[in-house]
Amino acid sequence: MTRISGGSSGGSAAAVSAGLALGALGTDTAGSVRIPAALCGVVGLKPTYGMVSKFGVIPPEAAFDTVGVLTRCAWDAAALFSIITGHDPLDPTSVRAEVLDFIAGVEESFSHGRIGVPRGFFQDVIDQRISKFFERFITNLGRLEVASEDVEIKDIDRAFDIWFPIHRAENAAFHAEWYPSRSSEYGEDVRRGLQSGMEVTAVQYLNAQKSRARMEKEMVETMSHLDYLALPTVAVPAPRIGEDPMRVGGKAFDVHRLLIKLTLPFNVTGFPSLSLPIGSIDGLPVGAQIVGKPFEEVKIMALANAYEEKYGLFGEPTLN
Amino acid sequence: MTRISGGSSGGSAAAVSAGLALGALGTDTAGSVRIPAALCGVVGLKPTYGMVSKFGVIPPEAAFDTVGVLTRCAWDAAALFSIITGHDPLDPTSVRAEVLDFIAGVEESFSHGRIGVPRGFFQDVIDQRISKFFERFITNLGRLEVASEDVEIKDIDRAFDIWFPIHRAENAAFHAEWYPSRSSEYGEDVRRGLQSGMEVTAVQYLNAQKSRARMEKEMVETMSHLDYLALPTVAVPAPRIGEDPMRVGGKAFDVHRLLIKLTLPFNVTGFPSLSLPIGSIDGLPVGAQIVGKPFEEVKIMALANAYEEKYGLFGEPTLN
Repeated sequence: MTRISGGSSGGSAAAVSAGLALGALGTDTAGSVRIPAALCGVVGLKPTYGMVSKFGVIPPEAAFDTVGVLTRCAWDAAALFSIITGHDPLDPTSVRAEVLDFIAGVEESFSHGRIGVPRGFFQDVIDQRISKFFERFITNLGRLEVASEDVEIKDIDRAFDIWFPIHRAENAAFHAEWYPSRSSEYGEDVRRGLQSGMEVTAVQYLNAQKSRARMEKEMVETMSHLDYLALPTVAVPAPRIGEDPMRVGGKAFDVHRLLIKLTLPFNVTGFPSLSLPIGSIDGLPVGAQIVGKPFEEVKIMALANAYEEKYGLFGEPTLN
Repeated sequence: MTRISGGSSGGSAAAVSAGLALGALGTDTAGSVRIPAALCGVVGLKPTYGMVSKFGVIPPEAAFDTVGVLTRCAWDAAALFSIITGHDPLDPTSVRAEVLDFIAGVEESFSHGRIGVPRGFFQDVIDQRISKFFERFITNLGRLEVASEDVEIKDIDRAFDIWFPIHRAENAAFHAEWYPSRSSEYGEDVRRGLQSGMEVTAVQYLNAQKSRARMEKEMVETMSHLDYLALPTVAVPAPRIGEDPMRVGGKAFDVHRLLIKLTLPFNVTGFPSLSLPIGSIDGLPVGAQIVGKPFEEVKIMALANAYEEKYGLFGEPTLN
């Protein structure tokens, strides 16, 4: 054991990868389903915000949190997702979206289409070995008649600056009943997080919410003539335990910021995103995200399923 | 000129009262339509939050702000409201509610019903002369077969504590582009307000939003077996210019807090509320609020219209 399996659902992803479970649930506030899915070589689906009830999830009603699924393949993801989705009056953030036949949909609804690749957003942070697999993935999608093009999503690199004050303040507001009055019962890292959440001003919070609405609008506009976006799930292979900072292309990055960088924008905007295994580097799995428009989970699962059918389940079928 | 006409639409209300205009628009964030309506002896309707577009209103998207109408009578309010209501895609807070035939509705849809009176909320602050008119109003409603009962709305007296941090922080967030960088161009009172808005923390803001949702739920529950709520619009007759604090029953009150106390809860919850003239004290008009359930503007306008038809327009017809 020398590498992390990703967080926070790293144990669940490892269990699914090892065949100890057919599927697992996780919550994804910044990438906590998709990142471990990528690092463990399984499928991880973060649905559209509000598609799965968060009743009982702590903290409740969080702005970026979504319950997702971890499975071996896209078909299993559709089966598990079909069980847990649907409106729940007990969760105020739950939406009333149509519940489709996801199992029929994952098999039947793939219909090619256009995919946008925001290369400008990840080119500076990506490990070149990951890049190679990702570009092969895009080439393979082309053989499935999914045409790709470069896209630019304005201010997408501001995702962390939007996410951070909202996420931290929400956590601090939820814990206000016990923190700081019982601060000694909290661990040092959690205390630090809550403290920073208490220092966010309402003006910072409200301005972050405004920026968030703008980013959602930008993403809707960018995707108006597209069916999907694609980008790597994580810019690097699984880090070594304790490795922080991590070096990519001669530059040092905070490992947590680096791990969540490519998944976070879809928490900020609430768009559905699926991480699909697309290869491995010396035994370390590599994942790619397929992002859909809101409520188009079936479409991204169908594309993932078509990819698996053509190129096989997790492995490096096309890299020899 | 020795008395204020109420704020912020005091000029508009005075103009309607004096017959200089058939009707006027105003915005109501804490009572700015209903308070001047009461003090000037005209009808003031604050619709349900989101029923009238706030496109162009400053600041945009404010949590408590609603465009309302000032008119001589309920029928005129229905006519003016029918012109300005309806969904507007340019205002993100605009709702998609059914647009009824309000003019037919104000004449035809009155059907008696039950009214709740939250006496516990206003009994400690009310001028006894206002109270006398209000109780006569309730008696008169009884003759229209509108049966009344005492109700208690839990924590309704916390409305100001909920309203204040949200309202102030929203204002400060809107002005962040110019304040504090151009603070010398702001007036002293506005500067003080913006400064206090900048000091609100995100945790205070989020907790106020939670309390707000709870108050809305309490009000929905209180009204579940009722058709309306009724309470005075303002607890006192029009204050003298510069009179602050104001004394009621031997106690001194901050005049602004006192003026908005009875209107504010319906901004916090977004419920529609209409102020109707019900008499005058030495020439100073007295108003009563009829509050409806969300989207039931037509019902409160119809009750006001039925009251006017039975007891006549503004005056003291039943007090001899």
